[in-house]
Amino acid sequence: MQLAILGTGAVGRALGMAFSSAGHDVVIGTRDPERTRQREEWAGIDLVLAAYEDLDGDVFINATDGRGSLPALEAVGDALDGKVVIDTSNALDFSQGFPPSLFISNTDSLAEQLQREFPEVRLVKMFNTMNNTVMVNPQGLGDDSTIFVAGNDPAARQAAASLAADLGWTDVFDLGDLTAARGLEMYLPLWVRIFSLLGRPDFNIKVVR
Amino acid sequence: MQLAILGTGAVGRALGMAFSSAGHDVVIGTRDPERTRQREEWAGIDLVLAAYEDLDGDVFINATDGRGSLPALEAVGDALDGKVVIDTSNALDFSQGFPPSLFISNTDSLAEQLQREFPEVRLVKMFNTMNNTVMVNPQGLGDDSTIFVAGNDPAARQAAASLAADLGWTDVFDLGDLTAARGLEMYLPLWVRIFSLLGRPDFNIKVVR
Repeated sequence: MQLAILGTGAVGRALGMAFSSAGHDVVIGTRDPERTRQREEWAGIDLVLAAYEDLDGDVFINATDGRGSLPALEAVGDALDGKVVIDTSNALDFSQGFPPSLFISNTDSLAEQLQREFPEVRLVKMFNTMNNTVMVNPQGLGDDSTIFVAGNDPAARQAAASLAADLGWTDVFDLGDLTAARGLEMYLPLWVRIFSLLGRPDFNIKVVR
Repeated sequence: MQLAILGTGAVGRALGMAFSSAGHDVVIGTRDPERTRQREEWAGIDLVLAAYEDLDGDVFINATDGRGSLPALEAVGDALDGKVVIDTSNALDFSQGFPPSLFISNTDSLAEQLQREFPEVRLVKMFNTMNNTVMVNPQGLGDDSTIFVAGNDPAARQAAASLAADLGWTDVFDLGDLTAARGLEMYLPLWVRIFSLLGRPDFNIKVVR
């Protein structure tokens, strides 16, 4: 499958390398491929880069940060129409220090905002409840944990769940329509607090039921 | 230990019976003990009832719902001063249907609001992230799961954690000061969604780390 990942940060790189290792064709979208290629953290990374406006794929993954998500999707444009777009982003606002707040929450979510701006996209919220090291290596925690999917298109949720399974996820919890993204994004303040107390990001929650 | 529980609903009854079985002296506060005693769901329940204004104990547990918490604490009044008060409440607002929203969230929490109104209270947020059947029988899930404590007074958090241990909790996660209650209360929309999909409330999350 051709996977097009938006964003060249830690999440984009981790997902790009992991899905590439899992046998998918991966291309990473960025504003300026030449400048990205020269960045220190891209040394030795053998992933194809493309400008946002040239990006295309069977499935897109938004791995930009919350504030950058709408501009990044706009830069890709019409290529997104009809496609599954997995949104990993969070609405965290650290501008007032710790603890962070959310710049969208409660009666709306970043994922729903993106879906409204791109009604032709089959948007799925996934991967936003964990660090990138956990996204690509769920077994690394030593015990089973849970990943959630939410989106208005059941087939798109299934496609996202199948991609999670390619990375080793065994407990994929389908939360139904995209209003569930509110809960997934509002979990982040708890995640951040646990992270700050553990002093490391390699943890996740398991729904024990 | 003398435990004074505010609220005669499912949470108050479950915690009252469980802490009583664990060997604590329990009294349940209510507006009108005579009327509560006559309610159908109180048939056969052998717990001492007291009017809020007569309520006292070593530790208090707020088991009223979110909207009723401030009035209930106000009705108890000065007896709360200097005491550990465990707050189990949530700010869920179902007035606009499903999914519910929170009537306090993001940059504030119900627990912090109560703490501001009662600065002499040693408030601890605990028990709000699960159904009452799980609160009193964590082993019933068949697998270990996590309960969180948050509050500004470390000794109060320890007292609450010790009470959780009395009910069989083995994984008590100390989240530090009361701003962590924002994350604990903002987890509720995810809890509600999981509940609606499982069709039953007997589940909880485990922090796998």
